[in-house]
Amino acid sequence: MSTSSAAPSAKPPMRDALVAAAFQLFLERGYEQTTVDDIVALAGVGRRSFFRYFPSKEDVVFPDHERCLADMTAFLAASGADHEPVRRVCDAARLVLRMYAENPTFSVQRYRLTKQVPGLRAYELSVVWRYERALAEYLRGRFAGRPDGTLRADVIAAAVVAAHNNALRSWLRSDGEGDAGATVDHALGYVQSAFGAPGAQAPAGPRPEAPVRTVRLEGPGQPEDVVVLVSRRGVPLWRMVREIESALGADRRD
Amino acid sequence: MSTSSAAPSAKPPMRDALVAAAFQLFLERGYEQTTVDDIVALAGVGRRSFFRYFPSKEDVVFPDHERCLADMTAFLAASGADHEPVRRVCDAARLVLRMYAENPTFSVQRYRLTKQVPGLRAYELSVVWRYERALAEYLRGRFAGRPDGTLRADVIAAAVVAAHNNALRSWLRSDGEGDAGATVDHALGYVQSAFGAPGAQAPAGPRPEAPVRTVRLEGPGQPEDVVVLVSRRGVPLWRMVREIESALGADRRD
Repeated sequence: MSTSSAAPSAKPPMRDALVAAAFQLFLERGYEQTTVDDIVALAGVGRRSFFRYFPSKEDVVFPDHERCLADMTAFLAASGADHEPVRRVCDAARLVLRMYAENPTFSVQRYRLTKQVPGLRAYELSVVWRYERALAEYLRGRFAGRPDGTLRADVIAAAVVAAHNNALRSWLRSDGEGDAGATVDHALGYVQSAFGAPGAQAPAGPRPEAPVRTVRLEGPGQPEDVVVLVSRRGVPLWRMVREIESALGADRRD
Repeated sequence: MSTSSAAPSAKPPMRDALVAAAFQLFLERGYEQTTVDDIVALAGVGRRSFFRYFPSKEDVVFPDHERCLADMTAFLAASGADHEPVRRVCDAARLVLRMYAENPTFSVQRYRLTKQVPGLRAYELSVVWRYERALAEYLRGRFAGRPDGTLRADVIAAAVVAAHNNALRSWLRSDGEGDAGATVDHALGYVQSAFGAPGAQAPAGPRPEAPVRTVRLEGPGQPEDVVVLVSRRGVPLWRMVREIESALGADRRD
């Protein structure tokens, strides 16, 4: 756990010691069989110190979610009108991934623990719900006044969270091997292809020579009335969609 | 509450009496201030009768979810290969709506109660999660072997649940006035337009003559290697996507 290359942390050492002691005991004797008294005894601190940092035993299992939720809220609040909304919530979801990826060993241990303890599963659901609401509230603001604004906001927020969690769980099940960021990028790319605006998709590396392009037909009788998409087979659907959106979006602006 | 025109119910009268007594007390004195002893005293039955029907006080607040989950699971298990998957999970979600719409007064009371009591909110999240997993598991089966099958299954299930709940909450906030079915149909239509396969969307009137079609190019050197989509401008993006998916899907089978 000491090999993390995370950015310098402001977490106090006593808090870290409590988390480390708690997980040592959870792994040795099980979550239900470990009391707060056991944890503070191993960490060499008093009960009051524990409750200064964690409202309950459940909270020590997810020590960084409150900070991450605050980071996400601040990130979304700092958005400008020029940020494409779907891309913005995808970027916000990446903050959660980063928290997990900062410490793969701890994340994988917690994943296994959470699967075994129904109370922790319920706690995790409530945390996921709060992330989803943060994304949805931001989107509701951006979509305010548009038709179906709250519907679109809620559906896109749920889709982003589901895609993120699908990729995250896949990475956790592989014991934190592989490139978590690439897996999540791919999953979020799927959501952006379904809901994103033109140009919103982050390109995965340099773009190869036009495997997909749109052509303008300006024949007599129907100038610009037809969209023709030409694509190689094997090009992902989202690439085609992006191209069509881009062609249509150029006309639809204003 | 007696005006419901629901199908004949197999619920035993004592169970109904317990639910009615519980809600009377929850509304009169609050959820937290009501004990199981209070409920059984008002209903005129013993504690063991309560726990025969409900594992806990929380369960009496959501007396029909287990039945509805079982109905949904059976409905999905009875699906055939000819059911379009996204449409099928939308239909499955409508089973939940029907449960709420069967008894608007009770549903609105419960909605207000759940908003006030954090423990009930957490309980509801776990129920919603189980619905979502039921939908996702069905979709994972249908998408097995396809690229991104589990990703698509999880994202679509989450989107369906979010759309359903957005519409349901809107109806509950209006005190159960208005047409819940139409509201949910509209919301689910949005999800189908984003993810549905060809023919899955309930068409709004007769389909105009081919505003969008794909063309096979079988020129020398690269037979069938290129997809060409020809579409009139103004055709919704989802129609174009459906057409491309259909053309690609025909090749990708087997």
